[in-house]
Amino acid sequence: MIIVLKPGATQQEIDHIMAKLKELGLSIHLSRGKERTIIGAIGDDRVLQNQPISIFPGVENVLPILSPYKLVSREFKNEDTVIDIDGIKIGGKKIQVMAGPCAVEKLDLLIEIAREIKDAGATILRGGAFKPRTSPYSFQGLGEEGLLYLAEAKKKTGLPIVTELMDPRDIDQVLKCADIIQIGARNMQNFRLLKEVGQYDKPVLLKRGLAATIKEFLMSAEYIMSMGNHNVILCERGIRTFESHTRNTLDLSAIPAIKKLSHLPVIVDPSHAVGKWDLVAPMSKAAIAAGADGLIIEVHSNPEEAYSDGEESLRPDQFKSLMTDLRRIALAVDREI
Amino acid sequence: MIIVLKPGATQQEIDHIMAKLKELGLSIHLSRGKERTIIGAIGDDRVLQNQPISIFPGVENVLPILSPYKLVSREFKNEDTVIDIDGIKIGGKKIQVMAGPCAVEKLDLLIEIAREIKDAGATILRGGAFKPRTSPYSFQGLGEEGLLYLAEAKKKTGLPIVTELMDPRDIDQVLKCADIIQIGARNMQNFRLLKEVGQYDKPVLLKRGLAATIKEFLMSAEYIMSMGNHNVILCERGIRTFESHTRNTLDLSAIPAIKKLSHLPVIVDPSHAVGKWDLVAPMSKAAIAAGADGLIIEVHSNPEEAYSDGEESLRPDQFKSLMTDLRRIALAVDREI
Amino acid sequence: MIIVLKPGATQQEIDHIMAKLKELGLSIHLSRGKERTIIGAIGDDRVLQNQPISIFPGVENVLPILSPYKLVSREFKNEDTVIDIDGIKIGGKKIQVMAGPCAVEKLDLLIEIAREIKDAGATILRGGAFKPRTSPYSFQGLGEEGLLYLAEAKKKTGLPIVTELMDPRDIDQVLKCADIIQIGARNMQNFRLLKEVGQYDKPVLLKRGLAATIKEFLMSAEYIMSMGNHNVILCERGIRTFESHTRNTLDLSAIPAIKKLSHLPVIVDPSHAVGKWDLVAPMSKAAIAAGADGLIIEVHSNPEEAYSDGEESLRPDQFKSLMTDLRRIALAVDREI
Amino acid sequence: MIIVLKPGATQQEIDHIMAKLKELGLSIHLSRGKERTIIGAIGDDRVLQNQPISIFPGVENVLPILSPYKLVSREFKNEDTVIDIDGIKIGGKKIQVMAGPCAVEKLDLLIEIAREIKDAGATILRGGAFKPRTSPYSFQGLGEEGLLYLAEAKKKTGLPIVTELMDPRDIDQVLKCADIIQIGARNMQNFRLLKEVGQYDKPVLLKRGLAATIKEFLMSAEYIMSMGNHNVILCERGIRTFESHTRNTLDLSAIPAIKKLSHLPVIVDPSHAVGKWDLVAPMSKAAIAAGADGLIIEVHSNPEEAYSDGEESLRPDQFKSLMTDLRRIALAVDREI
Repeated sequence: MIIVLKPGATQQEIDHIMAKLKELGLSIHLSRGKERTIIGAIGDDRVLQNQPISIFPGVENVLPILSPYKLVSREFKNEDTVIDIDGIKIGGKKIQVMAGPCAVEKLDLLIEIAREIKDAGATILRGGAFKPRTSPYSFQGLGEEGLLYLAEAKKKTGLPIVTELMDPRDIDQVLKCADIIQIGARNMQNFRLLKEVGQYDKPVLLKRGLAATIKEFLMSAEYIMSMGNHNVILCERGIRTFESHTRNTLDLSAIPAIKKLSHLPVIVDPSHAVGKWDLVAPMSKAAIAAGADGLIIEVHSNPEEAYSDGEESLRPDQFKSLMTDLRRIALAVDREI
Repeated sequence: MIIVLKPGATQQEIDHIMAKLKELGLSIHLSRGKERTIIGAIGDDRVLQNQPISIFPGVENVLPILSPYKLVSREFKNEDTVIDIDGIKIGGKKIQVMAGPCAVEKLDLLIEIAREIKDAGATILRGGAFKPRTSPYSFQGLGEEGLLYLAEAKKKTGLPIVTELMDPRDIDQVLKCADIIQIGARNMQNFRLLKEVGQYDKPVLLKRGLAATIKEFLMSAEYIMSMGNHNVILCERGIRTFESHTRNTLDLSAIPAIKKLSHLPVIVDPSHAVGKWDLVAPMSKAAIAAGADGLIIEVHSNPEEAYSDGEESLRPDQFKSLMTDLRRIALAVDREI
Repeated sequence: MIIVLKPGATQQEIDHIMAKLKELGLSIHLSRGKERTIIGAIGDDRVLQNQPISIFPGVENVLPILSPYKLVSREFKNEDTVIDIDGIKIGGKKIQVMAGPCAVEKLDLLIEIAREIKDAGATILRGGAFKPRTSPYSFQGLGEEGLLYLAEAKKKTGLPIVTELMDPRDIDQVLKCADIIQIGARNMQNFRLLKEVGQYDKPVLLKRGLAATIKEFLMSAEYIMSMGNHNVILCERGIRTFESHTRNTLDLSAIPAIKKLSHLPVIVDPSHAVGKWDLVAPMSKAAIAAGADGLIIEVHSNPEEAYSDGEESLRPDQFKSLMTDLRRIALAVDREI
Repeated sequence: MIIVLKPGATQQEIDHIMAKLKELGLSIHLSRGKERTIIGAIGDDRVLQNQPISIFPGVENVLPILSPYKLVSREFKNEDTVIDIDGIKIGGKKIQVMAGPCAVEKLDLLIEIAREIKDAGATILRGGAFKPRTSPYSFQGLGEEGLLYLAEAKKKTGLPIVTELMDPRDIDQVLKCADIIQIGARNMQNFRLLKEVGQYDKPVLLKRGLAATIKEFLMSAEYIMSMGNHNVILCERGIRTFESHTRNTLDLSAIPAIKKLSHLPVIVDPSHAVGKWDLVAPMSKAAIAAGADGLIIEVHSNPEEAYSDGEESLRPDQFKSLMTDLRRIALAVDREI
């Protein structure tokens, strides 16, 4: 950590700061320049995370040297993490496509959609039994019944299931049905939920928060990993900006940026990012071209009557056609779908 | 709801849309202009919230007429809601100041701070027992022990307590100690938590999310009210913008904006908004001038050694001096502290 | 335009609004619903752009029906605009890559870079003679001398030139050298500059402003077109968000979104968007996959010593390798480079 | 400047970086920690502004120590700058209120408004002759004729004039009429315009850009000052965020933040910030409470028929009433109006 002192910092102030740094077990370099005096605190500057050095008298600014996360970093683990779900590998050469309805609605419909997306080449079935909705008057999901439908769809099609957990009290039910537990964007900093899923080894699909920086996104993954669960899949799903033409702004540069910082796999949710079905195909292609390890796409047999997010859902035939296009892009970046 | 059709919409497409609107029990006005044909769907257009009309063939755009919230609105209840906490009224002529440490740390320290803020004129004690922290390696709060300290501080000083609930599993403990339950910014859309606190009549202090629009903020209050709990205090605490000089950007225009839309009281948290103690005083004054019904301010006897948010905490003497200044501003806007 | 009235709007207020609408030559539909009365003003609602109907007594809200732009819209011109620069077509099947140094520095260096990017397949040379820099102490460009170097580089390589105009007083000089005039992001709403370039038929490359919505971006293109110059190339170059890991957030969903709204060609500047050379390649690929008609990429023989934006410049060998990769992506979306 | 090296940085890489720093005349401190090696470059690190050290091999990160501006800083000049306009002092104890119509429309109307705002206590008349409008089809201002009207209004009322300059070619005309030259938000980084006004000693009212950080805002002031004109008034007018209920989000914390960093006076434009007339009064009060040195407020005798920004204009009687309220707030913060 670098502590930049104010131009007029007194010797007493400097001594006070240095005493605290020594107390914390850091070794110290003091360097006096023409315009500023600087204190370099050497050692693990994470011990300073709870110490507000910036308000010590005489301090102008504090510059951290190390990133605040550890387990998620490339520095901690250099090779890419590959997560294996019954033989389906996320983070390897093969790009995995997860697809399905936003919300689980009816059993027959779910199985029908599952079969169609499987035929088209998807390898994992998505579907929400618990739905976080902005309005209390909107459909809130089928809950436990929805989980049973998902289990049945898995039995019928062999597709592993990814579904959202919203409340730590539902963890047992969700563990029974899900092959991947999804933590939604609105819960990215629901730290109690992160700690909960960190206690199992079930893979977690962690969505980036609406207004989360990449650093905060990685810190949330660190929460899960710090509890022992290293099977974390990161999911970029658009961030909130001033632009209102699309629901969110899909930040594809987060993919290569995160890949440099972290060993974890990164997938993309184009559906929630854009909020309009006809923008899903170009953004899916762009995500693959930018290096995504997978996609999670909303598909519904009858979007006009979908209980949730019909605006952004593809019909099965549109999804099938998209998969054909995605295979070409995957090949062009030396990957496969 | 107004449905704007594409220039070339066919009669068949129009019939299809109108059939759906009729099915939903809405009456319809069709008006054909030179450039656009428009369908007005009259009735409670909230029935359309689950129906993605925008993807019906021939539709260019859908414009809602009514706001999506009801119970929180001025239209539903015209007079200001005043919430009474053992005689302390939030939302009336008197501005209430809540103060205390970010996190509960030690019992003695808490009682000391409580006494000092009470002497200075604060009427409610704040303090976190459960702390949402960005890093898993930061102090996470004392938990249940912290709640006991708060109860003890209340016993000693008579100050009612506001403290945060992060997990629905902690509700019973928190109900025992808290006079106001705080829902933090990161949990503003933790809908299960909102539903949980909606089941009691204990007042809820709901903080605006980091990137929440005013509309979403009101929808989260609607969640709580729709469960039966109408004692909701809204708290503006800064939103996330591109500006990084302050921790967040305090949106004071939200106060008069919300006051027009809703009958609920609005308070301001200047400490978390700016993240720097020396900006807390000017923003507290500005908040009162803009019409806030209260403030929630971080105060700590020794900010250099605070376990959390020392950067933005006032010392008791600074807080006392601020209270004197605030009284003058309050008078200048015909209120009192 | 739809005018939504407040629940208690009086007949007098309604008459006052209707009188104004009639005065403006609009025909009117009044529809009284249970919760709201609505006035539909039919005709070209652009006549209302200068009339603040929203403050008329009794008005709750005003909803425009038509987009505020005309000449840039697909409705005005359905087929894609293709701009021809000495046989190089922007907006057709072939994707054009513009490349070169951020700033023109030395003649020899410029010619060397021009030759290398031409060998790699770029078809247009970029280089700034006038440089908009955040700091007055940074290199401001060679000015007129830089334009002469560009002209010389064109003579030597045959590559057409794209270069920035910052000041209407420089238009004559720039017209002599440039085949495409660039309007930078910071000048997207420099309306006098837009009107100036609108008076010639020289193609204009208009960059999206740092915080410009797609609608405002199109309105700035409308400024140029409304003066008579229909040769406008739109350039997405990243928008400003809270994320600070990248310089800006590249909004690739703007490509398909704009393609739906407008007939103008859209290219992407990945270099300024990300601000880091090692993110340029993945975002260039993603841009092509998302449907971009071209790219503009910074290339410098010695980025360590570049006068401007060395951080984001590719070396010629890196650019060459990228072009090979881009050809594969282009083929995968049925285009060519 | 602090240069943080990558964990595996080689001696050759370190030597290469140190050679460059020495070449630039900086002295160097190398400190090897357990996790990172750090190079401190001592001297004026502004010489590094044109040198992209971050891409030198082995470099992980570069942390600047000094702010990039100089003349605007408190470090350069500690006492507050007070700008004197014919005896009206901006930046002193007295808060100055500038008021008037958004656009100059008719001579009689302008003089009428000028008289009314003067009666109410405003000391400077605002009015635009050149109007930056998002749409080319909106009223663009009366141009030179508008300037003549302003000169006439000054003659009749004695009020000094603040009016906007959009194009360097209009400087001579504007200098003749204006006592303060306004640079609008959209031109905050129109660097050629900044340089132009920097060549005179006429006071400049510089508005913060739509998406400008405080640092960039100060850098634009630095542009003007670096040309010799030290009479710069900074104006906070709202920044662009995701919130769409108000036109912009007024960032009042920028006032105390800038006051710490700079000696320049800071005023606030509440009208453009909120875009709704009924939010202007509370935000004006809040601005004074937060420490603003002045306000610039839109006033129009007949907002319903204003050519521009009628939505946010106060009528003269509303303005008069606001001035009464503002005097009370000013007294409460030991200032006067």
